[in-house]
Amino acid sequence: LKLFRKIAIVGVGLIGGSIGIAARKRRLAGEVIGICRRETSRRKALKFKACDRATLDLARGVRDADLIIIAVPVGKIVDRVLECARHMKKGAIITDVGSSKEYLVREICKRTGNRLNFIGSHPMAGSDKTGVLNADGNIFENAPLILTRTKNTKRKALRLLEGFWRILGCRTFILSPKEHDEHISLASYLPHIVSFALSYSQTNSSVKFAGGSLKDTTRVASSDAGIWRDIFLSAGPAAISSIDTFLKNIEKLKKAIAHRDSKEIELFLKKAKEVRKRIL
Amino acid sequence: LKLFRKIAIVGVGLIGGSIGIAARKRRLAGEVIGICRRETSRRKALKFKACDRATLDLARGVRDADLIIIAVPVGKIVDRVLECARHMKKGAIITDVGSSKEYLVREICKRTGNRLNFIGSHPMAGSDKTGVLNADGNIFENAPLILTRTKNTKRKALRLLEGFWRILGCRTFILSPKEHDEHISLASYLPHIVSFALSYSQTNSSVKFAGGSLKDTTRVASSDAGIWRDIFLSAGPAAISSIDTFLKNIEKLKKAIAHRDSKEIELFLKKAKEVRKRIL
Repeated sequence: LKLFRKIAIVGVGLIGGSIGIAARKRRLAGEVIGICRRETSRRKALKFKACDRATLDLARGVRDADLIIIAVPVGKIVDRVLECARHMKKGAIITDVGSSKEYLVREICKRTGNRLNFIGSHPMAGSDKTGVLNADGNIFENAPLILTRTKNTKRKALRLLEGFWRILGCRTFILSPKEHDEHISLASYLPHIVSFALSYSQTNSSVKFAGGSLKDTTRVASSDAGIWRDIFLSAGPAAISSIDTFLKNIEKLKKAIAHRDSKEIELFLKKAKEVRKRIL
Repeated sequence: LKLFRKIAIVGVGLIGGSIGIAARKRRLAGEVIGICRRETSRRKALKFKACDRATLDLARGVRDADLIIIAVPVGKIVDRVLECARHMKKGAIITDVGSSKEYLVREICKRTGNRLNFIGSHPMAGSDKTGVLNADGNIFENAPLILTRTKNTKRKALRLLEGFWRILGCRTFILSPKEHDEHISLASYLPHIVSFALSYSQTNSSVKFAGGSLKDTTRVASSDAGIWRDIFLSAGPAAISSIDTFLKNIEKLKKAIAHRDSKEIELFLKKAKEVRKRIL
């Protein structure tokens, strides 16, 4: 099933590399071309079989691609899309895999005058690891993936891109960029923020007594600081709003503990446990 | 190496059962006797090889034990210790495995007039699972374990008990009950509180988009609500103090995001990541 004649992946790291591996394994394209910034990355992309060909020349790499996937950190997506826009062929689909959408989609539409067939994608398939050496074609299996739709989105392109992600194993959802940020703020920005703050709060003594609870809750505090700085800068309003929801709730639990309100504490924990059952 | 002629374990659940399995495997005692409340638990304790004998009769079970381990939920520890105190032999060591210490040790010392050879133990080896069917003799391997020392603690008993936990694989630390609660508050109460509040904050929509970050950070929100209610009631002041530390820090990060302060956000995330490296 060849959905595309040629797929170009701009940025062959953990996510870009995993897409390449998965797409090649499923023979989804006549050719997968990786576009890298440095010669060392180019060699690694080939070594880990993330693409059929790899190049440092973005203009030539995207020229006759039918699907271009921008898999660079959030802070660099807009620039890279604009760069591709100058070289890609008319009608090609271009997407990204960034964790923020409202700001990115608005900025890209504005700066390209809506001329582009741009559709935002966000696979919930990251990890605290980075780099093509950690790439894995199976990370999309059953992962939620959000596609963004605006009034300019072409229906046919959206269906084709949705099909692509589904074949990689994703469970796809279509939302507006604003809806994306609202939901993802609770499901992803907030767990990261909480994890960073929890790790930040530890002392030299407390880390010695770390059991499973501290390890699990702070795992994502190992994530790349630059990547998450850019996500928080790009999705600030949604992040703040989810922090406020969380603060209201933790204050409620704190109050119940301070008042030694046995019933209220138990109700809170039981509700939390119920919600947790639905996080699969 | 028989450290004790007879060990009695009161409450053969996840932790009690794991201790029994580990102690039997290492032949640490002439006999391990399990003391249960219900006949079904008694049968399961034997089925999962957590003890050599199991009984519902606490008085007879603890009578000639040299080491008694109270492995019941925090809310029931004081009562069970007092019950054992009426039947155990003079000079026997009695310990618990509860997650809170200041309140428990004070209460036990007060209500037994310091007559007991009681030493608090807290192995950081739990999980969100419960029951002897999840017991595993290897969970103590490399787990931190805190022993409490007060002015009444007998040096010889403390050394013997420390040796016991070390042979099970624990890395032992000796602290005052108050110090225990302070350190554990950051390392264990706080991750649980944060995890419960994070799970509580999710919506019907957001849980559909759960990736690894939400799964990991909310795993311990699956923990038993009754057990954690009792820990928070028993260690309230220490829990509140760690919540306040955390709130101060998350407010700092929120402010940096609200002000789009790129440098401040990155510094915060980098420090969190540095701390995380020391949580092994």
